[in-house]
Amino acid sequence: MSGTTSTTARVDIASIVRASRNASRKLALLSGETRKAALLAMADSLEANSARILAANAQDCAAEKLVAAGKMTQALFARLRIKPNGIAEMAMRVREVANLRDPLGKVLAATELDDGLILRKESCPLGVIAVVFEARPDVVPQLTSLALKSGNALLLKGGAEAAASNECIVALCKESLRQFPEVPQDSIHLLQSRADVMELLQLEGEVDLLIPRGSKEFVAYIEQNSRIPVLGHGEGICHVFIDRAADIDKALSVTIDSKVQYPAACNSVETLLIHKDIAPAFLPQIVAALQAANVEVRACPRAMSLLPQQKLVAATEQDWSTEYSDLILSVKIVDSLDEALEHIHQYGSKHTESIVTEDQSAADRFLREVDAAGVFHNASTRFADGYRYGLGAEVGISNGKLHARGPMGIEGLTTYKYKLHGNGHTVAEYAAGTRHFKHKPL
Amino acid sequence: MSGTTSTTARVDIASIVRASRNASRKLALLSGETRKAALLAMADSLEANSARILAANAQDCAAEKLVAAGKMTQALFARLRIKPNGIAEMAMRVREVANLRDPLGKVLAATELDDGLILRKESCPLGVIAVVFEARPDVVPQLTSLALKSGNALLLKGGAEAAASNECIVALCKESLRQFPEVPQDSIHLLQSRADVMELLQLEGEVDLLIPRGSKEFVAYIEQNSRIPVLGHGEGICHVFIDRAADIDKALSVTIDSKVQYPAACNSVETLLIHKDIAPAFLPQIVAALQAANVEVRACPRAMSLLPQQKLVAATEQDWSTEYSDLILSVKIVDSLDEALEHIHQYGSKHTESIVTEDQSAADRFLREVDAAGVFHNASTRFADGYRYGLGAEVGISNGKLHARGPMGIEGLTTYKYKLHGNGHTVAEYAAGTRHFKHKPL
Repeated sequence: MSGTTSTTARVDIASIVRASRNASRKLALLSGETRKAALLAMADSLEANSARILAANAQDCAAEKLVAAGKMTQALFARLRIKPNGIAEMAMRVREVANLRDPLGKVLAATELDDGLILRKESCPLGVIAVVFEARPDVVPQLTSLALKSGNALLLKGGAEAAASNECIVALCKESLRQFPEVPQDSIHLLQSRADVMELLQLEGEVDLLIPRGSKEFVAYIEQNSRIPVLGHGEGICHVFIDRAADIDKALSVTIDSKVQYPAACNSVETLLIHKDIAPAFLPQIVAALQAANVEVRACPRAMSLLPQQKLVAATEQDWSTEYSDLILSVKIVDSLDEALEHIHQYGSKHTESIVTEDQSAADRFLREVDAAGVFHNASTRFADGYRYGLGAEVGISNGKLHARGPMGIEGLTTYKYKLHGNGHTVAEYAAGTRHFKHKPL
Repeated sequence: MSGTTSTTARVDIASIVRASRNASRKLALLSGETRKAALLAMADSLEANSARILAANAQDCAAEKLVAAGKMTQALFARLRIKPNGIAEMAMRVREVANLRDPLGKVLAATELDDGLILRKESCPLGVIAVVFEARPDVVPQLTSLALKSGNALLLKGGAEAAASNECIVALCKESLRQFPEVPQDSIHLLQSRADVMELLQLEGEVDLLIPRGSKEFVAYIEQNSRIPVLGHGEGICHVFIDRAADIDKALSVTIDSKVQYPAACNSVETLLIHKDIAPAFLPQIVAALQAANVEVRACPRAMSLLPQQKLVAATEQDWSTEYSDLILSVKIVDSLDEALEHIHQYGSKHTESIVTEDQSAADRFLREVDAAGVFHNASTRFADGYRYGLGAEVGISNGKLHARGPMGIEGLTTYKYKLHGNGHTVAEYAAGTRHFKHKPL
């Protein structure tokens, strides 16, 4: 499945990474205008060459026979196939990223330390980013645009199933960059095999950030086998809490959307918590709606006793800490907002948590006290996404608290440096107490 | 050396960390006023109880006999002893942190995603921070104040030599917090032994950030033996580049200060790069000044040939990648700014790099192109420090590019959460294209 390049000689990953590193130094010096123009050209090129992309994708999709043979799931196939409007959408997304405000060279803080001694904290690119992802070829232009917009060199490794599509899209992106001689061709590299990735994992100091997108096990494997900093898609055990002061209609639609709209996503809900005071009115309606949407409900004893006529599956302790990624929802009745907060503290994965209520003070408490990347009021957990947040797109969703939290766009691909301008200033005088800092914010 | 507690029963680290975690949830809800008032009370308490602190410190310093016996170096002893004005300075530093702007609840970005759907990115504490540090007891009030100001619970482990001083200071801090019943006593814990730290390293998910302050080997050990996120003091191979357009007086004072003011610090200079055009005028003067300050000069062949009458030590390849942390400086003559940039790219540790020049465009290039946490123009590398930067103090200096770079103050101890306020909004309509995002920055 590694396509046209499987016959070429084994590539030397260390030299590819070195080329990326050199490219990153040039990328960091490009003007915002150049980076934007290059991205707009890239978008045009994708549209102008849609026949090439679709032909490559058809090659990957010829593996449809494999589906019949049971070697590829229908779900995987759906992610692999580029839909008729898919290329226009890819191009649109690239243009959206192109048009975002330049994330580089922003003065994040400025302080006059003393007369003539000015400190500025300024945003700059991370350097070299590596992303390992699965089937979807539309991820390629997204990642490419986010990396280039933020002045970073990019190493990509996609799923073997999408090899032809990914190679075609990367080739088109690189071709479109030829119009801009100051943009290095080595800004983007597509790695070919799992062995390449394994080699890459050892190149700490050469790669600044590694983003594995895939199963929890895959992310954990990468974290354990590399000393390169990793920002990983973590698991999503998200909750919706229906407070006693919830509006029932909002509670129904937020719950259904959070579960049904795309149950495989990490931001879909796994456990519904219901305040005991609203459960008698809400539970029958939501269970009916969930069942109508083919959702299996796993209920706590109190919920089961409220609906004795229903044959609900009994939830076990295991259910509260399970990410179903499927049309299954566990339901628990709680006595209070406090009990909901405790349950989320104990079982939540700090991804996205939502409260449905018309009581502003309950909402305020929930949003303040829940420790998660996203804390929502009267909104579906499915909004936790870089595109929906207005970040243009996302390189991934971080479950960690350091550097980037939640959906991670171009800002997550930047760091900063402190620029200090002096006039021959030395520390000795301040240490001796003959000069004193002003520390005046500018 | 573990002082008064060495006789007490072995503590259960997991339950201490659990108590810290619970404390962190309460700390996150405190108002900025309460956190500030608690810190001011802490500063007062340190001053009011200086006799107690000095007595405890005298106990540690009784180990002076150990110095005589060669078991403690004079340098370590100097770091251990609290000087007469030391307590007033500790208190002053705590007050400075108390008076910093509140780092919590800051709205870092706000976007109207659509009518009635408002997203805010708001700063919040990390949670539980653990810091493992060496001798200096004045680090305790610094770390305590930074953690409390940023709403984080703190686990501390200091050097065994300073056990009595550290215990006394932590006890006083906790006593002063008793005036504020809403501030949990478990906000601060002092761990007793290396075994406690080893146990702590396994508690991933319970501790949000681990900051080891010590030798490069110690930091690497911690990184390799814990899955808790680590921000470590890295090594500092810092350069000063004397450009051809340098002012000789500034070049002399910046170089001497960068090397001599405190050579053991990670931000002191290790290699001096000199442009060939200014070397004939500058080299004899700087070598004389360095030698007058007892600095050993290790010179490249060109520098040696410029000063044949001097008996300079010849630098080896090894010297360019050595952090001396001592009164030793390697010197290299380069042909151009480009060669200086390449040398720094190859050997620098991305800590702090300084250029001395009157040529603004050379300075601009250096500050833009050098990839380091601190890039300085006409200023000593020794300015790279949280206090000098106006951050109040520092929990450490990060050599990494993620999360916090360079001196790390209260901002580095915060993360953010996305708060989304809706009115029953669901994703399905946007996915179907019946509603469209506005993404209007607020």
